[in-house]
Amino acid sequence: MIVNIKIEEYLNKLNSFSFPKDREILEEMEDYAFKNDFPIVERAVGNLLYTITKLKKPKLVVELGSGYGYSGYFFAKGIEEGKVVLTDYQEKNINMAKDYYKRLNIYEKAEFNVGNAIDIAKNYKDIDILFLDLEKSKYLDAILELKSNLKIGSLVIADNVLWYGKVVEEIIDEKTEKIKVFNEYMFTNDEFFSTIVPLRDGVLISLKIK
Amino acid sequence: MIVNIKIEEYLNKLNSFSFPKDREILEEMEDYAFKNDFPIVERAVGNLLYTITKLKKPKLVVELGSGYGYSGYFFAKGIEEGKVVLTDYQEKNINMAKDYYKRLNIYEKAEFNVGNAIDIAKNYKDIDILFLDLEKSKYLDAILELKSNLKIGSLVIADNVLWYGKVVEEIIDEKTEKIKVFNEYMFTNDEFFSTIVPLRDGVLISLKIK
Repeated sequence: MIVNIKIEEYLNKLNSFSFPKDREILEEMEDYAFKNDFPIVERAVGNLLYTITKLKKPKLVVELGSGYGYSGYFFAKGIEEGKVVLTDYQEKNINMAKDYYKRLNIYEKAEFNVGNAIDIAKNYKDIDILFLDLEKSKYLDAILELKSNLKIGSLVIADNVLWYGKVVEEIIDEKTEKIKVFNEYMFTNDEFFSTIVPLRDGVLISLKIK
Repeated sequence: MIVNIKIEEYLNKLNSFSFPKDREILEEMEDYAFKNDFPIVERAVGNLLYTITKLKKPKLVVELGSGYGYSGYFFAKGIEEGKVVLTDYQEKNINMAKDYYKRLNIYEKAEFNVGNAIDIAKNYKDIDILFLDLEKSKYLDAILELKSNLKIGSLVIADNVLWYGKVVEEIIDEKTEKIKVFNEYMFTNDEFFSTIVPLRDGVLISLKIK
């Protein structure tokens, strides 16, 4: 456990007030995740992504691992002038995202890609926000391969960096070890200034400072 | 308990890598808090304040309740062009802040005030970031009195909004009730878009959207 369950419930309730006009569709997306055991960032993290997007005013957000577009919704809503690039290796998920985004009136703010997320992202230069939510063992590879596509002042946001709390267990598996190495890299490499928010499964927020 | 203690330790260790050039003085400030049981935001929250400041690029940050200047350090470091206004009702604290800020080379980025924080803050218009860390029962009053001094797009950041987890206890005292009412106000009033980060004692981050 990362956060006290009662606190999580309290926060979920407060966070559920967001985006009243889209409430029905958002709840439909959340329901799909619940019923299909599909990992999404949840509303609390989504609202944080929206807030950060409003502050950052990005032209280009690139997501590595978009699923059916739940996290991308919050970026798209926060973007004033620009776009969010969605990637997923499953065509079914991207097609779902397209349908949802049409209904949510954010289709024009997004680009949709099926395939290897890192390979797709390499085509995008001058990224303002890079969102990592792909296979956890690939986080560090993603940064090493895409660092030169990130502007100075850009943000890296990574989900699941506390990995169900496994990062503090005594015996850890290979995937958890890779997440720990990624976290240490982001906090000790002087190209980044990092912080982790223990919201849900842990969200890393890193500024590219040089 | 809000966050798993082992997770807190893990985050504290990672966060301690920040600001290596100021490490000695920061640790001196943290040590003073520990020895005197003085409530400060801690490094993890400080690093988040710095990150938000870098994104927001504020001209004017006003703190309600600065203590001896620990949270103000992170705002001052993040400000590129502007200033942070410190307030505290104890002259001793403000004098300590002045001394620390001279040693940290951020004295010129700050203004120092002794007295009633809300009254002092009323003199500042066009606030970009308002930081609440005063007497917890006064949070809502502070917002109601200072709302018109906040720009559209400005931020309210409030510390201790989960109040040691008391907000989810069955029997709550008057102070906790006031914090709960404040939180609900910030999430349901359509002038603000809010989120709470369960870092340490809970940090509310609200955008003034109209």
